[in-house]
Amino acid sequence: MNFSSKLIETSVQEFAKLPGIGKKTALRLVLHLLKQDKQQVNAFANALIAMKEGIQHCERCFNLSDAPLCQICKNHTTGSKSICVVESVRDLMAIASTQQHNGTYHVLGGLISPLDGVGPDMLTIEALFKRIKDEDVSELIMALSPTMEGDTTIYYIMKHIENSTLKVTTLSRGVAFGGELEYTDELTLARSLQNRLPVERVSHSRN
Amino acid sequence: MNFSSKLIETSVQEFAKLPGIGKKTALRLVLHLLKQDKQQVNAFANALIAMKEGIQHCERCFNLSDAPLCQICKNHTTGSKSICVVESVRDLMAIASTQQHNGTYHVLGGLISPLDGVGPDMLTIEALFKRIKDEDVSELIMALSPTMEGDTTIYYIMKHIENSTLKVTTLSRGVAFGGELEYTDELTLARSLQNRLPVERVSHSRN
Repeated sequence: MNFSSKLIETSVQEFAKLPGIGKKTALRLVLHLLKQDKQQVNAFANALIAMKEGIQHCERCFNLSDAPLCQICKNHTTGSKSICVVESVRDLMAIASTQQHNGTYHVLGGLISPLDGVGPDMLTIEALFKRIKDEDVSELIMALSPTMEGDTTIYYIMKHIENSTLKVTTLSRGVAFGGELEYTDELTLARSLQNRLPVERVSHSRN
Repeated sequence: MNFSSKLIETSVQEFAKLPGIGKKTALRLVLHLLKQDKQQVNAFANALIAMKEGIQHCERCFNLSDAPLCQICKNHTTGSKSICVVESVRDLMAIASTQQHNGTYHVLGGLISPLDGVGPDMLTIEALFKRIKDEDVSELIMALSPTMEGDTTIYYIMKHIENSTLKVTTLSRGVAFGGELEYTDELTLARSLQNRLPVERVSHSRN
């Protein structure tokens, strides 16, 4: 594309480095920013600089945080009964959005994957074991992706937990809401048949 | 969504102000930037600040430019024989990308639209008339959208051109490449029938 301006070209190139943004979209965004106030553009740019400058990993759960301890850990200063173990900060946010977990999290920073050369020592698993020892943990919820890597990670953690009374659970697996049975893969269907749930009886008292 | 970090939340909100970017995409972009080097994030932010600071309108054709005169006008210092009149910088870039126009441009900054309260005095039409007088212009290519507003603008400019020997042309209108005849609107089909083109005879000399 012919930009005829070095400044625009540089900005378009920077935008186009972001995932899912091509040159055409980048140009649209750049021309949009050019129409905005100088103040607005500066606010945008400075937000990014300040974020990169100030963001750190929570020293307890490895969530992204503005302070040494993240907001969720701050709300559970006395130790949390239940730790939800997740692969990434994205997964943490997805689970936090459901508002179903009332405990702390632990971000592994990946999954064990021998094929990709990711071993347990490259993740925050040791820190998790330390937390299990130090904090009064009663349940470990393994909210990992239902993949080979996720299962390997769960297996490794299970094998190395010293506290034998600790309850360890995983997310239930089965047919997704709104999914069509005929397009569900065989393995999922087989598992969801094995782990079938009782249907609660509807009360007919109103009729 | 639960961000648990003010810095991330601010950046996500800034990204989500851009057209076509929702909160989920904004978060994806922010987390991508957090994974990059500090240098890369600063380069991105500073490119935007520098662009907003340095970009100006070319004083001759009103294209966006790093200098008082844009690159295209600089390449045509002796005046251009042919001026391509466009609505916006986006349209200019689209036409420049075809590499079919070897002259300068003139960005109107909009189209005359009485319904939207846009009059000729709000556009750069006076500057265009001045250029026609001052420069040795031989052709005016009206590359405007084939809409009511585009036609009104062409009509207004035609009516006020004093130089009666100036050749004025518009983009040809007709069926688009790859378009299906049955879905082409009546008006376009009628016009493309009126302005039908002779088919060039294929030379059979090779057979």
